[in-house]
Amino acid sequence: MFIAMNRFRVRKGAEADFAAIWQNRDSHLKDVPGFVEFHLLQGPSEDDHTLFASHTIWANRAAFVDWTRSQAFRDAHKNAGGHSDLYLEAPRFEGFDVVQTIAGK
Amino acid sequence: MFIAMNRFRVRKGAEADFAAIWQNRDSHLKDVPGFVEFHLLQGPSEDDHTLFASHTIWANRAAFVDWTRSQAFRDAHKNAGGHSDLYLEAPRFEGFDVVQTIAGK
Repeated sequence: MFIAMNRFRVRKGAEADFAAIWQNRDSHLKDVPGFVEFHLLQGPSEDDHTLFASHTIWANRAAFVDWTRSQAFRDAHKNAGGHSDLYLEAPRFEGFDVVQTIAGK
Repeated sequence: MFIAMNRFRVRKGAEADFAAIWQNRDSHLKDVPGFVEFHLLQGPSEDDHTLFASHTIWANRAAFVDWTRSQAFRDAHKNAGGHSDLYLEAPRFEGFDVVQTIAGK
């Protein structure tokens, strides 16, 4: 299991516009091999921004890397640069490998 | 659904010791109401540290807040301060609410 996150520092007041862009996009994810689940997350607010994170669970890191090289990835991101006025800086990517799991009952 | 993350900047060379502490602890989580799943995540490495994150999925934010006020929380964290030499600074907490979900097939 591999979790791919992109962190966005969204300008105060632009939170609803930012979320709407994600909710209205065609993610092209459902049919991608190794895709497990996507979440858009809203985190804490600071004086000048609210933290958001895209949070995608993949079966493994290789499935994620394959997707970044696919046409589905290019299709999903073709409009990604058009909304950079909504956040303070370019999104920051972090990829995480699962070291330990504790499942609930 | 609510995701509670703590970010740890672990000193280079201390990664295995850090992971072992988590794997050997008694998390007291399995029986906590609203607990869904816990993962310890290993993220990218920089010059002086490797990013780790504890990543706990809760049914909702209220379940997480209730847990932080419980005896189970105190039991799970009673030794947490004893390993601060393994990371560069105090862990940074971030709580995330789920804004959008796309499930895989």
